[in-house]
Amino acid sequence: MVATAVMGAGSWGTAFSIVLADAGNDVRLWGRRPELCEQINATRQNGDYLPGIELPEGITASHDAAEVLAGARVVVLAVPSQQLRPNLEKWAPHIPEDAVLVSLMKGVELGTRQRMTQVIAEITGAGPERLAVVTGPNLAKEIARREPAASVVACADPDVAEFLQKWCHTPGFRPYTNTDVVGSELAGATKNVIALAVGVCDGLGYGDNSKASVITRGLAETTRLGMKMGADPMTFAGLAGLGDLVATCSSPLSRNRTFGQKLGEGLTVQEASGHTRQVAEGAKSCTSIAELAELHGVDMPIVEHVRALVEGRMGPQELVAAMISREAKPEVR
Amino acid sequence: MVATAVMGAGSWGTAFSIVLADAGNDVRLWGRRPELCEQINATRQNGDYLPGIELPEGITASHDAAEVLAGARVVVLAVPSQQLRPNLEKWAPHIPEDAVLVSLMKGVELGTRQRMTQVIAEITGAGPERLAVVTGPNLAKEIARREPAASVVACADPDVAEFLQKWCHTPGFRPYTNTDVVGSELAGATKNVIALAVGVCDGLGYGDNSKASVITRGLAETTRLGMKMGADPMTFAGLAGLGDLVATCSSPLSRNRTFGQKLGEGLTVQEASGHTRQVAEGAKSCTSIAELAELHGVDMPIVEHVRALVEGRMGPQELVAAMISREAKPEVR
Repeated sequence: MVATAVMGAGSWGTAFSIVLADAGNDVRLWGRRPELCEQINATRQNGDYLPGIELPEGITASHDAAEVLAGARVVVLAVPSQQLRPNLEKWAPHIPEDAVLVSLMKGVELGTRQRMTQVIAEITGAGPERLAVVTGPNLAKEIARREPAASVVACADPDVAEFLQKWCHTPGFRPYTNTDVVGSELAGATKNVIALAVGVCDGLGYGDNSKASVITRGLAETTRLGMKMGADPMTFAGLAGLGDLVATCSSPLSRNRTFGQKLGEGLTVQEASGHTRQVAEGAKSCTSIAELAELHGVDMPIVEHVRALVEGRMGPQELVAAMISREAKPEVR
Repeated sequence: MVATAVMGAGSWGTAFSIVLADAGNDVRLWGRRPELCEQINATRQNGDYLPGIELPEGITASHDAAEVLAGARVVVLAVPSQQLRPNLEKWAPHIPEDAVLVSLMKGVELGTRQRMTQVIAEITGAGPERLAVVTGPNLAKEIARREPAASVVACADPDVAEFLQKWCHTPGFRPYTNTDVVGSELAGATKNVIALAVGVCDGLGYGDNSKASVITRGLAETTRLGMKMGADPMTFAGLAGLGDLVATCSSPLSRNRTFGQKLGEGLTVQEASGHTRQVAEGAKSCTSIAELAELHGVDMPIVEHVRALVEGRMGPQELVAAMISREAKPEVR
C-alpha cells in the first residue's frame, strides 16, 4: 500500500486512480472543483468524466492540495499540459521531498518547448530518479471498465520503474518498465498530432489504408525526431508509441481524432473547437513539435502539414495528397 | 509501359491490376475460371470480387496461362498461399527467363515452412535479383476505389526495386522501396495471425486499448522472429509491418479479423469457417509460424495462443487473459 496523491480528477486521472486503488494503494484524488470532490466522496462516482463507473473505496477526493499531498510517496500529475506550470508552482511547497513524481500528461509546453517532466524538474528540482511517466494505449473509459490493457512505466532509474510497476499492476492493467523517459513522453505528445491527421482522412471519407499509411509514416517521423533527442527507437515501436497511437486513432472517443475529422469535413478550427468543447491538444502541440523538429534538423511532413492546416495555410484535401503522393523514395532513410 | 502478367483475378490481384494499368502498363490478368475472364473483358468488371468497380482499358483477362505469360517482363503472383506451388509448377515453363517475379501473397507454406519467394525460387530457379514482394496497408477495395495509400516494393536488388517502384507508382498509390524481402514477407504472413487475435478481442467485446496492446505486442514478437531470420527490424516498424497490421486490424473487411471475432464470440473453427466461407489464412499460417519460432528459439506468445485456440486447446477468454496479464516485465528484452 503506497500513499498516493493524484492531482487532477479528469477522466484519465480518475480512471488511473481506479487502477491504483485496485492495486491496493491509498489514493487521494485532488480535484479543482470542490463540488466534484464532494460528489465523488458521497456517491462514489465522477459524474462529470466517468458517469456510471463506481469508484473503489480506496479513493478519497479533496480540493485541498496541501492535504492531498501530505505524506504522499508518489504524486501523479494529471492536469492539461498547458496548465501544469501554474498549478505545480502552487503545489511544489507541499510535495514531500522524496516523493516520486509521475506524469500522465501528453503535451509539449508552448513557448518553452519543454516536455512535461522537464517542466516538473524545473519547478520542483527533482532529479531523474524521481521523475516518471505512465503512458500507453490507455483510453480512460476502457481502463475504468477494467478491460485488459498494457502500459508503459518509464523512469531513468530502473529500480524506481520496477517499484512503480508493482504499484500499478492489476489483473487488467499490465505495466511494462522502460528507462526511456524522453521517448515515452515525445511519443505521447506527437501521437495527438498524428491522430489529428488521421481524423482528417476520416473526415474526407478515406478508408483504412490511408489512415494506416498516415499512422505508419507519422510514427516514422516521430522516431526520427526522438532519435535526435536521445530517445531509444524501440520506444516508438512499443506501447508508448505504436500502442498509444493505434488505440487513439481507432477510437471514436479521441478528441484529437474527432477534431481532425471536423477539419477534414471542411470546418474551420473555430468551428471544430465548438464540437470538441475546446481546441484539441494536438492542434497546440503541433507548433511546439514542429519547432523541435526544426531545431533538430528533422523532416516531419505530417506534423508540418497539420500545423499548416490548423493555421489555415492548407486545406484538408491538400494535406492528404501531400502526405501520400510525394516523390517516391526508399522507406527508411 | 511494361508488359505485365498478373496471375490471379481475386480481389487483390484485380485491384493491383488497376494500379498497374493506371501507371501505364499493359496488363494481362489470368483467372482460373473462364467465365470470370469473359465477364471482365465484356463488362469491364470483376463481379465476383470487386463489383461496381470499372476496370481500365489497359487490363485484358484470360484463363490461358501460357498466353498471359508470353513476353511478360514482370509476372505478379496472386493466388492463395497454399495453392502457389501446384499452380507455379504448371506455369514455370511459360515464364520468360528474365522476367521479375512479384509476390502479392501473404502466407507461409504448411509443411515446408517456406516463405512465398522461397517457393518461387525453388520452382523457377530465379535468383534474388528476380524475386520481389509488394506488401503494405493495401485493402483491395480501397485501392480499387483509388483512395490514397502507401506501399512497399521489396527486392534484394535496389535497382530492380526502383524499377518496380516506377512500374506501380500512381497519384493514389505511393510505393516505397525496401531491400528486405525476408522481413516484408514475414510481416505480411504474421499479420494475419495477429489480426485473428485482435478479432478475438472484438468478439469478446473488448475495446481499443486491448486491441492496440495485442497489435503492439504482436508486432514486437514478429520483429523478434524476423531479426533471428536475418530481417531488418525497421521493416516491421514500416508499412509492410505496422502499416499492414493496422489497416487489417481496423478493417471490417478483413477475413482474418472476422474469423477471430467469431472465435471470440464462442464459435468453433468449423462454425467460424462457415461465416468467412473458408478457413482464414491466419488459422493456417499460425502453425508454420509457430514452428519457425520454435526452430529459431523465439518466444511468440500471441502466435502460440492463436494456434492453441485454433486447435481447440484454449478458450478465447483465456487467450486474452494470457496475453495481457502475465508476469510484469520490461517492455524490450
